[in-house]
Amino acid sequence: MPTYSSMDKNALNKELEKLLGYYENYKAQGLSLNMARGKPGAEQLDISNDILLAITQGTNFKTADCPDCRNYGGLEGIEEARRLFGDMLGVDKKKVFVGGNSSLNMMFDTVACMMELGCSGEKPWNQQGHIKFLCPAPGYDRHFGITQYFGIEMITVPMTPNGPDMDIVENLVASDASIKGIWCTPKYSNPQGITYSDETVRRFAALRPAAKDFRIMWDNAYAIHDISDTPDTLLNIFDEIAKTGNEDMVFEFCSTSKITFPGAGVAALATSENNLAVLKKRYTFQTIGYDKMNMLRHVIYFKNFDGMLAHMQKHKAVLQPRFNMVTDTLDRELADLGIAQWTKPNGGYFVSVDVMEGCAKRVVSLCKEAGVVLTGAGATYPYGNDPQDSNIRVAPTYPPIDELETAMNIFCVCVKIAALEKLTKS
Amino acid sequence: MPTYSSMDKNALNKELEKLLGYYENYKAQGLSLNMARGKPGAEQLDISNDILLAITQGTNFKTADCPDCRNYGGLEGIEEARRLFGDMLGVDKKKVFVGGNSSLNMMFDTVACMMELGCSGEKPWNQQGHIKFLCPAPGYDRHFGITQYFGIEMITVPMTPNGPDMDIVENLVASDASIKGIWCTPKYSNPQGITYSDETVRRFAALRPAAKDFRIMWDNAYAIHDISDTPDTLLNIFDEIAKTGNEDMVFEFCSTSKITFPGAGVAALATSENNLAVLKKRYTFQTIGYDKMNMLRHVIYFKNFDGMLAHMQKHKAVLQPRFNMVTDTLDRELADLGIAQWTKPNGGYFVSVDVMEGCAKRVVSLCKEAGVVLTGAGATYPYGNDPQDSNIRVAPTYPPIDELETAMNIFCVCVKIAALEKLTKS
Repeated sequence: MPTYSSMDKNALNKELEKLLGYYENYKAQGLSLNMARGKPGAEQLDISNDILLAITQGTNFKTADCPDCRNYGGLEGIEEARRLFGDMLGVDKKKVFVGGNSSLNMMFDTVACMMELGCSGEKPWNQQGHIKFLCPAPGYDRHFGITQYFGIEMITVPMTPNGPDMDIVENLVASDASIKGIWCTPKYSNPQGITYSDETVRRFAALRPAAKDFRIMWDNAYAIHDISDTPDTLLNIFDEIAKTGNEDMVFEFCSTSKITFPGAGVAALATSENNLAVLKKRYTFQTIGYDKMNMLRHVIYFKNFDGMLAHMQKHKAVLQPRFNMVTDTLDRELADLGIAQWTKPNGGYFVSVDVMEGCAKRVVSLCKEAGVVLTGAGATYPYGNDPQDSNIRVAPTYPPIDELETAMNIFCVCVKIAALEKLTKS
Repeated sequence: MPTYSSMDKNALNKELEKLLGYYENYKAQGLSLNMARGKPGAEQLDISNDILLAITQGTNFKTADCPDCRNYGGLEGIEEARRLFGDMLGVDKKKVFVGGNSSLNMMFDTVACMMELGCSGEKPWNQQGHIKFLCPAPGYDRHFGITQYFGIEMITVPMTPNGPDMDIVENLVASDASIKGIWCTPKYSNPQGITYSDETVRRFAALRPAAKDFRIMWDNAYAIHDISDTPDTLLNIFDEIAKTGNEDMVFEFCSTSKITFPGAGVAALATSENNLAVLKKRYTFQTIGYDKMNMLRHVIYFKNFDGMLAHMQKHKAVLQPRFNMVTDTLDRELADLGIAQWTKPNGGYFVSVDVMEGCAKRVVSLCKEAGVVLTGAGATYPYGNDPQDSNIRVAPTYPPIDELETAMNIFCVCVKIAALEKLTKS
């Protein structure tokens, strides 16, 4: 198959007609397929069912620093859980605060805390007038949602294969004291699956922000979520900021949402003792403590970090064929045509597809009409506005694999149709 | 024994000397007893251990409106849990939002939401300048903590045997549009164990606040927490506001913290659909959803509201003798002396003791020196400031019953010493 750009109008029209035929056939099937959100599928959920039996009649509810996990108390979480997450993130358990079932909630609460109390001795963010966040994009829509909710202006920073464009980040952060933070998914980034290079992490650690209260929101959502036999590795940001004297610059987040159960996992954050002290000034009014029984359940189930890593191999076994199917279909259907690029991540939950400029919305809408739900076009950009209208996030984890195959075939047909519509009109 | 006020200085001094002797003997025992917080004791926690086995290998994770409780989704909580809490509060499940493990957290988030978004079409509370909350006192220190955290001025309203002094509440609320809310524990109030009378509830429902965005924070923490064979009943505030056209005026809160596990229960709120819509504008950015597996665990365990009521009988069996021991000791040791009053609640978690004016801090400090920890004197008032320095909250639930007996004996000795010190000095 030649590239579309090398074809004449007549050939393009013919091709469009053929594809519209396929499309109508798919539509006639009345399908209902969903590749919208990074939700684990049923097969993945089953992997962790035994955690529900981890607490038995013989369980002792006492832990290293908690006389009874069933009762009130223990604002920072039980010591064993702090250690488990500390091992996962490569930080001392003293830096770890274990929360409820949602790391998103911890990010929201962290931004709320900075808004209300501030940090590094500066005024609360909500008393500093107009403030801004850097948003590497494409990125995670729910990150952008938090900053938008709090009325923080979002500045898009382009992603490169090594992470955010650090020349731009360094310049902006050094020159504008109203920039208070940046959203990062440093490993297997959402949606591109990019892992920040060592140099990128080092440049983050070495930032010299104009704002003393500038904070990096380091959402390590996919810290151990490999899907390939050649997984990426991420430099430990806490080791790096220890060297550069920027110990207070990072809030790191993680959870077991995609390790055990998305709806009933445990979330945690790691940060400096100075920052923890600020967060606790708020948490101490907000709650008496998070669900320690669910922490205990996880600690008993995994035993230790090695147990968690072994567990992740089971997820990998489920996810690897799915991701292969997605990228194989893209390769087979689109590689020759010169109308799209996509990533082949070694982990995480997404494949990021850049379709022809100005075509993403059309592809998503064509898919929807044919019964395939995708993340809304633009969602991966601040304010839902992809200036190229090109990026689409594909989430291969949720549908059964046979449905995934159908969904991907429909997706590729729609990518082609949208491109052909554009080329035949121009 | 005559009342202290009828005794002459000489007799008072003799009595003081005798009591100081008892006190030194207690001190010499090096005790460590705690009556500070409303924490269930180990015996109560054991009542609910079987909930940990409610989810078994055969459990179906599908509920009425949730395809799989293990996965993401379901912001308002699963339908079965909404119904259970709706039955508990006497409201339709549509009015119920089920959250995480802490109703305190839901109250905090509700105030935060009003601060950031506002309600009833008014400006957000944090854009309205100086605002105020009414705080019936003695009351719950953590309520006052939330308003203090958000910089909301707290105005103390005296409690009467029928609830807050409604003449004062009505006047203040009708005349001052900067008053945005009131904290209420309407049943078995913390710390006095007072249940608001029908008239009080009706007067709340009939309030005509100057502020359209005035809200009642109705913390029904002890809705079904009876300890007596003649339990109190509370009028349903939602039935009443339906009659008065004040449907948007109430946020009601509850949880299973003192039904199953304090550290791992489920919390919920009930409010109008208008208010829910505002709350969801914030929740939708804050989280994808709370722990549905813990909701499911509770729903399976209790089956329905009747199951929950039957369960509460087991708590009552543990708590009744403890409360009797506390009030019997107070009766025996203090009734004749004219130096203290106390409540005999039919439910809840506390006995409220008013010692001689100016003596509460001294009693708490004497107790502490003798190894008995009480809630800090003043904690039951806004800003920790009890103007009479008289109220002490006694929490009989946590210590083993033999320790409770010792703690109460020491407490009574300290109440007498503090009174005698005052009387012999004056």
